[in-house]
Amino acid sequence: MTLRLGMIGAGIMGADHARIFSEQIPGVSLQFICDADQTRARNIADTTGAANIAADAIAVINHKSVDAVVIAAPDQFHAPLTLACIAAGKPVLCEKPLSPSSQECINVMDAEIKQGQHLVQVGFMRRFDPSYVEVKNILKSGALGKALMLHCFHRNVAAPANFEGFMAISNSAPHEFDAARWMLDTDFKSISVFRPGGVNASPSAPVFMVVETITGQLVNIEVNNNAGYGYDVRGELVGEKGTAFLNAPVNAVANLALKQVTTYAEDWRPRFAEAYRMQNLAWVKSIQSGNPTGSNAWDGYCATLVAEAGVKALYSGSTVHLDPIAKPKFYD
Amino acid sequence: MTLRLGMIGAGIMGADHARIFSEQIPGVSLQFICDADQTRARNIADTTGAANIAADAIAVINHKSVDAVVIAAPDQFHAPLTLACIAAGKPVLCEKPLSPSSQECINVMDAEIKQGQHLVQVGFMRRFDPSYVEVKNILKSGALGKALMLHCFHRNVAAPANFEGFMAISNSAPHEFDAARWMLDTDFKSISVFRPGGVNASPSAPVFMVVETITGQLVNIEVNNNAGYGYDVRGELVGEKGTAFLNAPVNAVANLALKQVTTYAEDWRPRFAEAYRMQNLAWVKSIQSGNPTGSNAWDGYCATLVAEAGVKALYSGSTVHLDPIAKPKFYD
Amino acid sequence: MTLRLGMIGAGIMGADHARIFSEQIPGVSLQFICDADQTRARNIADTTGAANIAADAIAVINHKSVDAVVIAAPDQFHAPLTLACIAAGKPVLCEKPLSPSSQECINVMDAEIKQGQHLVQVGFMRRFDPSYVEVKNILKSGALGKALMLHCFHRNVAAPANFEGFMAISNSAPHEFDAARWMLDTDFKSISVFRPGGVNASPSAPVFMVVETITGQLVNIEVNNNAGYGYDVRGELVGEKGTAFLNAPVNAVANLALKQVTTYAEDWRPRFAEAYRMQNLAWVKSIQSGNPTGSNAWDGYCATLVAEAGVKALYSGSTVHLDPIAKPKFYD
Amino acid sequence: MTLRLGMIGAGIMGADHARIFSEQIPGVSLQFICDADQTRARNIADTTGAANIAADAIAVINHKSVDAVVIAAPDQFHAPLTLACIAAGKPVLCEKPLSPSSQECINVMDAEIKQGQHLVQVGFMRRFDPSYVEVKNILKSGALGKALMLHCFHRNVAAPANFEGFMAISNSAPHEFDAARWMLDTDFKSISVFRPGGVNASPSAPVFMVVETITGQLVNIEVNNNAGYGYDVRGELVGEKGTAFLNAPVNAVANLALKQVTTYAEDWRPRFAEAYRMQNLAWVKSIQSGNPTGSNAWDGYCATLVAEAGVKALYSGSTVHLDPIAKPKFYD
Repeated sequence: MTLRLGMIGAGIMGADHARIFSEQIPGVSLQFICDADQTRARNIADTTGAANIAADAIAVINHKSVDAVVIAAPDQFHAPLTLACIAAGKPVLCEKPLSPSSQECINVMDAEIKQGQHLVQVGFMRRFDPSYVEVKNILKSGALGKALMLHCFHRNVAAPANFEGFMAISNSAPHEFDAARWMLDTDFKSISVFRPGGVNASPSAPVFMVVETITGQLVNIEVNNNAGYGYDVRGELVGEKGTAFLNAPVNAVANLALKQVTTYAEDWRPRFAEAYRMQNLAWVKSIQSGNPTGSNAWDGYCATLVAEAGVKALYSGSTVHLDPIAKPKFYD
Repeated sequence: MTLRLGMIGAGIMGADHARIFSEQIPGVSLQFICDADQTRARNIADTTGAANIAADAIAVINHKSVDAVVIAAPDQFHAPLTLACIAAGKPVLCEKPLSPSSQECINVMDAEIKQGQHLVQVGFMRRFDPSYVEVKNILKSGALGKALMLHCFHRNVAAPANFEGFMAISNSAPHEFDAARWMLDTDFKSISVFRPGGVNASPSAPVFMVVETITGQLVNIEVNNNAGYGYDVRGELVGEKGTAFLNAPVNAVANLALKQVTTYAEDWRPRFAEAYRMQNLAWVKSIQSGNPTGSNAWDGYCATLVAEAGVKALYSGSTVHLDPIAKPKFYD
Repeated sequence: MTLRLGMIGAGIMGADHARIFSEQIPGVSLQFICDADQTRARNIADTTGAANIAADAIAVINHKSVDAVVIAAPDQFHAPLTLACIAAGKPVLCEKPLSPSSQECINVMDAEIKQGQHLVQVGFMRRFDPSYVEVKNILKSGALGKALMLHCFHRNVAAPANFEGFMAISNSAPHEFDAARWMLDTDFKSISVFRPGGVNASPSAPVFMVVETITGQLVNIEVNNNAGYGYDVRGELVGEKGTAFLNAPVNAVANLALKQVTTYAEDWRPRFAEAYRMQNLAWVKSIQSGNPTGSNAWDGYCATLVAEAGVKALYSGSTVHLDPIAKPKFYD
Repeated sequence: MTLRLGMIGAGIMGADHARIFSEQIPGVSLQFICDADQTRARNIADTTGAANIAADAIAVINHKSVDAVVIAAPDQFHAPLTLACIAAGKPVLCEKPLSPSSQECINVMDAEIKQGQHLVQVGFMRRFDPSYVEVKNILKSGALGKALMLHCFHRNVAAPANFEGFMAISNSAPHEFDAARWMLDTDFKSISVFRPGGVNASPSAPVFMVVETITGQLVNIEVNNNAGYGYDVRGELVGEKGTAFLNAPVNAVANLALKQVTTYAEDWRPRFAEAYRMQNLAWVKSIQSGNPTGSNAWDGYCATLVAEAGVKALYSGSTVHLDPIAKPKFYD
């Protein structure tokens, strides 16, 4: 009955997933830690008690002792590996993005539809974060009236050295895109992109996006990969009768040296520890129950589509309208 | 030595100014409360101890026992009355906007320059609000690095019955426009306007503006005149190294009925009580010292210019670039 | 009509009062700044525009051009100077304590009763602080049910060099004592005193008091004159159905260097700036209207009485029961 | 390798533990749900997938297929059942209190020492709560200097019908007592108890305790089982150089109807969900590793001893000094 997992990718995300599954999720075992870098795989296997390490992801996916797969490989491998999972008929939790290319996302959907089972969950873990869930519950309660706007703020301490502005849209913003579609239960129509500095913006400058939905809401997103002060994700949902803020976890408040202080972490892990745990729990339960949960391949496609449009809007300086494929009935 | 004031306008703003000057500002006396509606004028005079009431604003402005004038008449009279004050050589604190028309603002500047004295202060009181002042001080301290963005949120409980979307830009947003120019010490270059519902937006829908400055910052402004839940003005300044939030005054926090609660007021008065007091104090001191303070006629022009552009952007759906006159040296 | 004030004492409190009256209170003029140290008096007179300086407090009190008196002299002079004001039939705002000796407070009451007019207000300004007023209003609204407990926290950055533990009770706690009596509308029955370290407590250690009221509430007070981190006064009123916290003013919140930060001041002035202004405004109005406000001589006596009992409780290690005189009808 | 658990008690705490172990803790299986009420046991077994139900706790404890035991039976059975676990040589997580009687706690220690293995963990889960852990980490960092006081606030919505004041001390306060001992790394010396209303206190009135430690700190505890407004546990640690507050988890903040609102739960489960999960994870790991964690039998004794003293202090109105047995070396 234990779900035997093949973990593909032993980087920072893979290590985190392996740790979460081994320490916090009942009913699973780590069958393989797979990475081209065998040292990394070995290290994770040692700390998590995983049964084996491997270097060949396709072999792991197809291995008879693997029941389900977690993909935390580099982005360009997400779709090919997901396709291999579909071909093997195995449930897969694929880190976001499903693919950097919307066409590849379509390919994944085509394969999954053809295969006939819901096998793909994309790792947009914010859908499981207690703050996102509670704000959505407040909206669903009717207390706010209809949703009108969602203000989103995504801040990292510092971007990697080779960072360029478009990456804020293609790499960081998809979390915001998916969370907003889910929160508002809608799809996107268009995207406009602004940057401090405009056409002369520094590569390190934030990106500010205004995304319109087909149901009329505005989603306003700051992605600020060089915010300097800490990892900080905020948001406010504005309805006709009121608003609701996401609240990040804070464990203590200190009074010291003429200051009252709470602390930010340097990366996403403390902020979203509970979201990842809840996502991974829900994924395992969904496999056991046969009822898919979380973001599916269509959601992955939608996030990539708006990211592609956002990059175009960034370079063109104009509002870009989305032109999605018709939503396959399979994903209703 | 007492500064004798002529108060023009006995509506809600006029009543508030009369109350502030009589109760909280040393060194002034209320010489006239002037309003076409003599009952309103009488009521305010009775509660504030003002010496006289009057119906003719021009006569009050020119009266020899009036040293300085406060204009809280309807918007369309602001510029004509300000011009009368300039003609009389008397200092004037004019409620915002200086005029709904940028051309009229130019006329006021022309008159003031010709008259040769700095006589006009526009009632953008946020420049005196302790939260705006402290955020600006944090910026000036260098702690945040250079300013990159300013997020502004302006919310009223409910708009009047005849409210239309453009009024959010022409009537409410000027406070945001002036505060942002002052906070960032810059001028505006262009404005884009979005609304939930887009071209089909409800008249009650919020307006969302992205304003770019000539020095490259983004000023993102929600004006939400039907926010439903309370009068609420927020803001966050985003710099290269950190951010700072405006904090509104809160006197108590209650724990009741499964809730922790703080209260919002129904209008701006509690939120900006201190800002008005500080503004009016500073205005009186500036007359005594001869050193102008606060927003001048140029600032009033700049706020109206961007508001006019914003209304155009609202109707056109396109970004509108500002085309200001050259800043007169008089206002350097 | 202008109320001409004699300011006795040009130390830090006197300077602050002079500044408040000159800058923020209409209807008054500073007739004398009186201090044995004429340089201090001169400096304050120069910055506030006071008309005269003086060295002889009694002469100032009796001067025909002085309508009312503010006493901010050292504590031991409070009662004698207040008695002189009563003898002169002039309203007096006396900084707390009315006297360090409850017997002297009785003497002041006797004199005031004999004189027959309510002339004495003690400078317990917290009764005018917006946070205290709002918490009391919440209590009066009935929302909390009956009051059961009041938790009070009084913290200074650092005590003076010669500080001893009893001073926390005799000098700092009276503000808490008066605020609690006023908030709960009751009187005190007994006081118990604890200190970290007990009988071996460091002179710098905080004092913790449990005060019982005649109507059954507990008032639990930390006075911590060496709190280290900032000037911080907090409080929570606990009722049968809920609680309410005092909220101190905060103008901005900064995000910097992995921290979210608000700042504390080094002394009481920013925290209670509004309380002092409102107190002084109310005092002036009360003289104009003839309706006394704020803490009277009886309140001053009650605060000193419990402070004396608290010092006894500190040294004895036992609960000390208060034995007040009967409340004179004059103070009902 | 899976740890097979016998769950004793299927009331609210037992149900919660069964849910936590089944849903959130890897490496365990629920072998028995044991309760005299077989319907309750059945219900929990059905929702958690437990293998069996049982009615005889001793038989479960001794069953060869049970590796470890969780005791969530009524308080009076805690010690006898724990003694049975010791006799069987099986690790036991016993809900607090270890026993309502300090003598019974001594009996448990005697048996455990004689048995020679560390088998007993008492369910003082706050030691694992992220807010308690972070405040303790701040203290350990040295930032606060030495600890001087700990202010604790424990509030329930409403006490059961038959509640009496002493239960606040014997049933609710032990969580505070253990957390304070752990936080301050010390032991208690004496306890004083106060109540609003004093000797005439209503049975529903809160209890306020001042507990002194052998190292000189004060622990001031409000236990308010009828707080009315919500389940709320707060605390502030006061050190020589600063203070730190416990911060409870809050997921969202809503703006509605002239209020800004966060919500309280009606019971402890949301507040301490993470604490229970972390405790139960740590307990399982401690069995696997052989390194005990959490509160041991000595800690359980210390909490009961001060509770017994607190009840005496309540009835006597005097400070009661503790007279503990010497700490057995086994627990160093």
